[in-house]
This record gives sequence, C-alpha cells and structure tokens, in this order.
Amino acid sequence: MPSYSAPVDEVLFLLSDVLHWDRHSNLPGFGEADLATVEIVLREAAKLCEQAFQPINLTGDREGCRRNPDGSVTTPAGFKEAYRAYAQGGWVGLSADSAWGGQGLPYTVASIVNEFAAAANMSLTMYPGLTQSAIAAVNAHASQELKQLYLPKMVAGEWSGTMNLTEPQCGTDLGLITTQAIEDGRGAYRLHGTKIFISAGEHDLCENIVHLVLARIEGAPPGTKGLSLFLVPKFEARPDGSLGERNTLSCGSIEHKMGIHGNATCVMNYDGARGWLVGEANRGLAAMFVMMNEARLGVASQGLAQSEVAYQNAARYARERLQGRALGRRGANGRADPIIVHPDVRRMLLSIRAFNEAARALLAYASLQADVARVSADPAEKLHAEDRLGLLTPVLKGVLTDRGFDNAVLAQQVFGGHGYVAEHGMEQFVRDARITMIYEGANGVQALDLVGRKVPRDGGRAIRSFLDEIDASLSDAPEQELEPIRLAVKESLEHIRQASFWLLENGLANPDNAAAGSYDYMHLLGGVALGYMWLRIAKAALLRKSAGVEAPELDAKLRLAKFYCGRMLPETGLRLARIRCGAQDLMSIPAEVF
Amino acid sequence: MPSYSAPVDEVLFLLSDVLHWDRHSNLPGFGEADLATVEIVLREAAKLCEQAFQPINLTGDREGCRRNPDGSVTTPAGFKEAYRAYAQGGWVGLSADSAWGGQGLPYTVASIVNEFAAAANMSLTMYPGLTQSAIAAVNAHASQELKQLYLPKMVAGEWSGTMNLTEPQCGTDLGLITTQAIEDGRGAYRLHGTKIFISAGEHDLCENIVHLVLARIEGAPPGTKGLSLFLVPKFEARPDGSLGERNTLSCGSIEHKMGIHGNATCVMNYDGARGWLVGEANRGLAAMFVMMNEARLGVASQGLAQSEVAYQNAARYARERLQGRALGRRGANGRADPIIVHPDVRRMLLSIRAFNEAARALLAYASLQADVARVSADPAEKLHAEDRLGLLTPVLKGVLTDRGFDNAVLAQQVFGGHGYVAEHGMEQFVRDARITMIYEGANGVQALDLVGRKVPRDGGRAIRSFLDEIDASLSDAPEQELEPIRLAVKESLEHIRQASFWLLENGLANPDNAAAGSYDYMHLLGGVALGYMWLRIAKAALLRKSAGVEAPELDAKLRLAKFYCGRMLPETGLRLARIRCGAQDLMSIPAEVF
Repeated sequence: MPSYSAPVDEVLFLLSDVLHWDRHSNLPGFGEADLATVEIVLREAAKLCEQAFQPINLTGDREGCRRNPDGSVTTPAGFKEAYRAYAQGGWVGLSADSAWGGQGLPYTVASIVNEFAAAANMSLTMYPGLTQSAIAAVNAHASQELKQLYLPKMVAGEWSGTMNLTEPQCGTDLGLITTQAIEDGRGAYRLHGTKIFISAGEHDLCENIVHLVLARIEGAPPGTKGLSLFLVPKFEARPDGSLGERNTLSCGSIEHKMGIHGNATCVMNYDGARGWLVGEANRGLAAMFVMMNEARLGVASQGLAQSEVAYQNAARYARERLQGRALGRRGANGRADPIIVHPDVRRMLLSIRAFNEAARALLAYASLQADVARVSADPAEKLHAEDRLGLLTPVLKGVLTDRGFDNAVLAQQVFGGHGYVAEHGMEQFVRDARITMIYEGANGVQALDLVGRKVPRDGGRAIRSFLDEIDASLSDAPEQELEPIRLAVKESLEHIRQASFWLLENGLANPDNAAAGSYDYMHLLGGVALGYMWLRIAKAALLRKSAGVEAPELDAKLRLAKFYCGRMLPETGLRLARIRCGAQDLMSIPAEVF
Repeated sequence: MPSYSAPVDEVLFLLSDVLHWDRHSNLPGFGEADLATVEIVLREAAKLCEQAFQPINLTGDREGCRRNPDGSVTTPAGFKEAYRAYAQGGWVGLSADSAWGGQGLPYTVASIVNEFAAAANMSLTMYPGLTQSAIAAVNAHASQELKQLYLPKMVAGEWSGTMNLTEPQCGTDLGLITTQAIEDGRGAYRLHGTKIFISAGEHDLCENIVHLVLARIEGAPPGTKGLSLFLVPKFEARPDGSLGERNTLSCGSIEHKMGIHGNATCVMNYDGARGWLVGEANRGLAAMFVMMNEARLGVASQGLAQSEVAYQNAARYARERLQGRALGRRGANGRADPIIVHPDVRRMLLSIRAFNEAARALLAYASLQADVARVSADPAEKLHAEDRLGLLTPVLKGVLTDRGFDNAVLAQQVFGGHGYVAEHGMEQFVRDARITMIYEGANGVQALDLVGRKVPRDGGRAIRSFLDEIDASLSDAPEQELEPIRLAVKESLEHIRQASFWLLENGLANPDNAAAGSYDYMHLLGGVALGYMWLRIAKAALLRKSAGVEAPELDAKLRLAKFYCGRMLPETGLRLARIRCGAQDLMSIPAEVF
C-alpha cells in the first residue's frame, strides 16, 4: 500500500532559510503568520492529509464516482467524511479574507497545504481546490450582494465551486463558446448550453455547488470579447444563508477517464438556469482569468505533489526490495541487496528528488510574489511582484506538471512489474498526474502565453528583471563549494539570454518562429529558474553548516544541487539549439502528408 | 473512435530502397520471399489487423479479462474470433520452420506483421506473440520428441505459449527463483511453486497452453546456475495430437493493472504439475534467453506500434479539430483553423513521426541480422550478424519502448482534454505502452546488459564494427542535400565514441561508473543509430527523386531527416555530459537519506 509523509521540515527550511520569511513580516497578514504559527498550521495540515486523505486515495481510484439515475453523483467511500473534516478545520478558506470567514493567512501557506493535500489525494483535493479559485474570482469581481450571499458558505466549505469554460466545440479557443445568457428582466440571466469536462460539477460532498460559467449575452460581439461570467448556483442562496430554489442545471453524464477517478468530471447542462453576472458584461474572460491564474499555480502544485508522493514510495521500495547484488559483489552468496545499491536506481530517484526540492522552492517563491502582489501597499513592490508572478505562472504550470508526470513514470519504473499493477498505487500517480499537463490550459498553451505575452510585455521588463536577479545571486554566492553550481547556472543563464534574443529577433518577422520555440523556451526558463533555486538552497545549507549544524540532510542538499547542475541543467543548451531551428522545418510539410 | 492503417507502403520502401531486400535473396528462405510476395503477405496482414484486431481494441480495454470461479479466464468479446482468424491464416507460424507447419518466411516479415498487429490491438497480439517466442525456445532446445508433440500445434496457433520467470520475491534477479522441480522417475518432473505476472497464463482463445517454466531441480546449485527450463502444458499432449490429462497447474488470480487489460496477467500455481526438461539441466537460463531475446525485439516493436497508432490518430485529429487561428491571422472572423496550423502541434506530431520511421528502419535492420544469424551458411557473416543483433537488441528494447511511451503521451497531448477521456482511445495507448518499458527486462536492465556485456564483449568488436559502418555511410552520402544530416550524424558519432572511451577508462576501475552512465549510453547509441537510419532513408529518398519520382512523401522524408538531426539528435551531447558525471554524485548520498 502506498504511503505519504508531508515534507514539513523541508518546507520550513525553505521558508526560513531560503525565502527569508521573516523579511516579509511588514506585509499585511504576515505579522500574524510568523514561522512558529506557520509550523503549527503545516503540522496540522500534514496530519489531516496523511491520516484522512491518503488512506482513501487508492480505494477512491478503484471505486470512482457514480452518476445515479436522478443525476446526482456519489463520490467514493470516505470522501464525504474526509471532506467534512477538511472544511470544518477551516482549510478551504485558509487564505480567504477574514471578512468572509477565512483564516486570512498568506496564500503561500495555502499553496503549501494544497501540495500536501494533492499528494495525499489529488481527486479529493480538487473539490475544495476549485472552490478556492472560485472564491478568488467572486471576491475580485462579483457585486457586494453576490459576495454576501455566496462567499461565507464557500469559504466555510459548505458550498463548493466550479469553473465552466469548455464546450464540445471549444477548449483552448474560448471565442467559440456558444452558451447563451438571456436577461430575465429581474437582474438575472437565463443560461442555455452545455459545458463539458467540468471537474467537481456534481457531487455529494456538500449541499450546494456554485458554478462560474462563461457564456455569451444575447447580441454580444463574437469571439472572446463577447464573453461574460455568471454565477450559477445549483440552489439559489436565500439572504438568510439557507437554500432556495433548485436551479435548472444538471449533470448529464460523467466522463470515463484515465485518472482522477475520485473526482467527477461532468457534462453540465444549463436549461434556462438562473445566473448572475460576475463583473461587467463582455468582460467575462478577465474575471475568469483571476480564477484561472490561481488555478494554474494550483495545478503546478498538483504536478509537484504527484512527483513527491511517487518519489517517497519509490525511495522506500528501493530501500526495502532485495534483488541482485551491488556491482563488484557478484557471486556473493546469501541474500540479495536492496536495489538502492544500484547506480541506475539512484539515478532515477535522484532525478526526481533534485527536481522536487527546487520546484517546491520555486512554487513557494512565486506564491510569495502572489501575496506581495495582493497585499503590498508599495506600488513599485506590487508591480514587481505582479511581473514576476505573471512570468512564472505559465512556467510553473508547464514545467512542474510535465516533470511531475515524468517523475511519476520514473518512480513507477523503480518498482518494475510491481509498478504496473494497481496495488502499490504507483500507476495511479501516473494516471492522476497526466491530467495536470492538460487542464487549466494545456502546456503548449502555457508556452505560448509565456512567449507571446508574458515575455514581450512591457518591453520584456519581467524577464529582464528576473534574469538580473539570478545574475546578482551569482555574485552573492562566492563560496568555493558553490563553484560548480554557480558555473552551471551562469552557463544556463547565458542560454536563456541567447534564446530570448533569438526569439525577439526572429519572432517579430515571423510569429511562427516564436511559437515553434515556445515549448523549449518554457522548459529552458524553468530549468534556469530551478537552477537558481538550487543555488539559493545550497547557499542556505552551507550557511547552516557553517553555523555548526551537522545533518545528513544538509549534505544531501549540497549533493543534490550538484547533481541537478551536472546532469539536468545542461539540458538548457539542447533547448537553445532547438529554439534556433525556428519554424521552417515544422511548417514546410503540407498538412495532408501528416 | 480510434483508427489504424498499417504503413505497408512505407515498409516496402524501407525494405526495397533502404535495406536492399533483393541483396539477401541468396539466403535460405529469402528466395521464396521476394518483395512481390512480401507485399502480398503484408497487405493481407494489414487487412486482418485493421479489420479484425483494431475494432476490438478499445472495447477489449474496457471489458478486460475475467477470472471465473473455476479458475478459467474469459477474454473480452471478439478476441476469440479474431484470434481464430489469425491462427487459421497461418500468422502464428509465419516465420516458423515449415517442418512444423510454419510458413518459413524470414523473421523480418514476421516482425513487421507483429508491429501491425500490436498497433491494432496490443493485448490480443500478446497471446500469439508469446507463442512465437515459446516456439523459438522449444525449437532451439527441446528434445525431438517434445518438438514433435508440441510444435505443430503451437505453430498452428491451436495451442499457445507462455514464459514463466517471475516470482513474488524475484523479478530481475532470477537467481532467487525457488520453484522446485522433482524428478518423477518416469522421465518427467513435478513442479511446485508460484509464478507471477504471467502474460496469457490462462485464457479461452485456444484449447491448450504450453508454459515454459524456470525452476530449480532438487539439489541444484543456488543462483542462476541451478535453473532449468521446463515445458509444462495445461493439458499433456498425446502422441496423436489430442489432449491428454489436465495438469495440476492453475491460474490463482489475474492482476488489476494499468493497461493491456485484454491480456490476462496471471498468478500461476504449480502444484506438482508435470513438466519436461527443455535443454540441459541447470542450463535453463540459456534456453530461456532464446525466448527472451526474441521477445525483446517483439517488445521493441510494441513500443513502436503504440507510437505509430497514437501518431496516426493525433495527426488525424490535428487535421480535423477546428480551434483557434493560425498566428498572424488573429481576429479573422469565421470558423477556426484546424490545429495543425500551429507550430507547437506540428512539433509534437513531427517529433513522433521522426522517431517512428527511423525506429521502424532500425528494427527491420536488426531483424534482418536475426535472419542472417539464423540461416546464413557463411560463418563470418553469421558471426557479424550475431554481434550486430546482440548489440542492438537491448538498444531497441530500451529506446523504442521509452520513446514509444513518450510519443503516446505526446500524441495524447494533441487531443487536449479529449485525450484524457477514454472514448478517443489515446489514454489506452499510453497505458498499454507503459508496460513495454518494464517487461522482458526493465529498461534499466537493458542498459546494464548493453554496457556490462554487449559493448565490452570480445574486446568491443560489435560496437566498433557498428560505429565503423556508420562512419563509412557518411562518406557514402556526398549529396549536398544530405550535408546537415551528415554533419549531425558525424557529431553524434563522435559523442558515442567519446562515451565508449570514457566508460572503458572509468568503468574498469569502478563498475559503478559504467552503471551510472548505462542508461544515457543506451539512449546515446539509440540516437546515433536512428540518425544513421535517417541518413540512409534520406539518401534513398533522394535517389528515388533523382530517378524522376515526385511524391510529397519523399520530400517529407528529407524534411523529417533534417528535423530529426536538427532537433532530436543533438541530445547525444547532453547524454555524453551526463555519462561523464560518473557515479560519485549518485553513490555519495547515504541510502537512509533517500
């Protein structure tokens, strides 16, 4: 049976020694969230995830969700109880505004808790995860009246949230949305249409579901400029917080899919369902993007989460499974050695781990930017944080999910044939991780967002500032032990600068050139960013050691930093070479020959 | 619904123009298999695979295999009929000796047919595929009496075969096998033990199943030197070909696993089951290796097969799915463009295709070596072919399955969310492809076989000769159009030479250094070999064009060759850099810190 132990100590090291949590105490909300408080919160979260979420992950996958003849959906055994414990513990509203009953903690803390929860049980975590994103969108754009009616219940986890974008004929291209909204003359709209792939669209975990639906008001312009966002509840909210009328929306079916079987992926039918505008008419995409940006970071953390739980189980298996002898000890009789003696098994494990620790650091780093962007009173600081967050969001979404999936596959490989059968849970991690590369914008779309929008925006201000920060960190790490790490990061920094320059030069003349290199650029920037994190982690580990702390974990961090920089970071050179190939080789083959 | 069209024309081009099939007509068996005959065979095979195998692939996955209370196993609907058509068409014994009723065609032809069949329905193809490997082992090592009793039925597909190696405590490390064989004093043995992960261990496709079982004769030495191979039939064969006594073996359960649901993966219990020795006592591993080597090429072809069928479906989807506009045409009204206009979609598709065509060439090239090794009367030619085949078998198994899986994932990505749901079949290709990286020796074990045995054997004779052949092909391709391909292959050839030298220099002192680089070395050699194939394919395409043949497919081959050499082959430099990292960074972290 698989197991999971939340990496609380590692997170605390990251927050304190690498990200210097205490330097943020001047930010609103951070004063009450000193490291001691955060530690208490994380240890509580770890307990809940390990004891309530994880034990029903494998069984939830096996059982899946069931749509009943009346259109209701039954989640797997135990999900209801675990969800209740989560909601009642205040975890849904962990970083929500205290005005709506939230805990008001930094988003960074919620993001870390989300990693723990997704590692323990991704399907279950998606239900409150979507609620959190819906809360953010409603809070940012809805009228005060809607907020008062819906936010307290959502923050308390009594009602859940969803996002409804996709239709059969449109996924990425939201301009093709046809769901219609017709004014009812009483301040609301009637929605008509079908949405597909709606995660948590119907379930039995709580009494009400608040759907945020992109639709087109009668007479609106075509394309994305005619989209509006609506709040469409399963049951209308009465002012006293009780449930009103059942809305005319229903779950038509649930998808049979590769993984996340414990989460109901629904076809949602809106048959004149009553909905209220969130934000301005025809500005729905902007409102939805609040939800999507937060959700993208959440998906990045799911990728990391699957990588982490897969790693933990593979490492344990490698320490325990006796098979073969260490090289050079062939022919020795007696029992076999644990397979962790084999260099190739270690290669697999360390490749995962060298990613996980840096990815967790980068996600926390970006989450901190999200906090600063949200609460800072200093306009310059706020702008800087927004730049950084905007730049890193597609990178985190794309890279952490691509690598998270690859790592789940690697961890499964450590188990040999035992990884292919269901009982060890490894194949579930692979199947669950796979969706993270697709939803909330497929990773190719993230790459286009990065290269087409985030990098060129404002004359490249965000990317230049981030690369300069990395550059500065090189001079800030003079220690001799850091030399190989510093050199490797420096070389990769040169690669991303050259790639950026190449895209600038060649993408303007022909946008296909930028698009052709976008995917490699995303991974190149991700590789550099993770190398930067390793430099900071290694520096922090050295500092602790020089303060007299001796721990094998600190030595391991230094070795992992070198491992990453020696074996993984050099990939940036290959990415640069591919980017320089441009679009010609891609575009010159006629479509009909494919 | 997924579809499949066997690439017959492409195969014929490979055989005629790239591999010069007619130059082999002097080999026994090749005279009757001229290209016109091969074409007829392949078109028949394509029809059967497309019309009988493919339509029950998705349904077979959904339905899976069922173990009944009496221990029998029911395969998915339609499998029995499709299997019967296959067996009655003579496909099981396509390359088997005509003395046993086989068609006596070259193994190369059978290998190509196996790719078609596995692309159409991998689970179903595994049943006769294992029979083919069992036939090879029995033919090579069993007594004349056993051959006469069993081979005609197996070759006819009336009885199927299996291989029984794995036990709960041993997978890779066969020395740990504990299944016991006790002489019964009447020329046979009684087997006691449990085998796991036995593909096609029990099923309803044919009346009898012939298990080849590795076990330890009472008093045999420990380790692999005490293993013997036994033929253990479900029903004993009577001399008249009818079924005798039911043997005391049974399927204890079938595994719940990630994919290949249509194939029954069984726990097999041998409770004093009667078996006959195949080959000499305590030489079972050598006999089993005949089966495993053939099976490894078969698994390589499964990897390619999943990549091919996934590609075909993704390419079709990309040509048909309307979503978004081509870059530079944003804001245009009217309907959307097919997604194949997007460079990043093309990047995904071409990455797959640039692999598939070269991988198919390399597999056919190696299969031809298998034929030469088997039938050549010239000892020097035979030895050369054995060297080449031995060297390439682990590379094909490791690289074609790793990349085959990656490509299935890429092809799934082209579908976005529609790739994650079951109905398009893309997620099945991913799940089915995943096992190919694991069974018949996990890919890490292939890499160790390559670096620890195949490369150093006979003073490196096989690798030197192969690299010299590639080198010679560079001078044999002076055409200006081939310049970028030639240069790229040349550079990668230098990488593999340097890597080989590094391993030689550093692996002797510390075998961990060789093991640490083994995986990258396998992929480095695979990358070079595929580049070599592209050089040959491109040269052949140019030659056809210069003969006045104009076809967009020929132009596409030239472009794909450049695509492979520009974007994919440069990976060899990264592999070399990793190999040079050696073992130190892997081995220096204590096991308990993992």
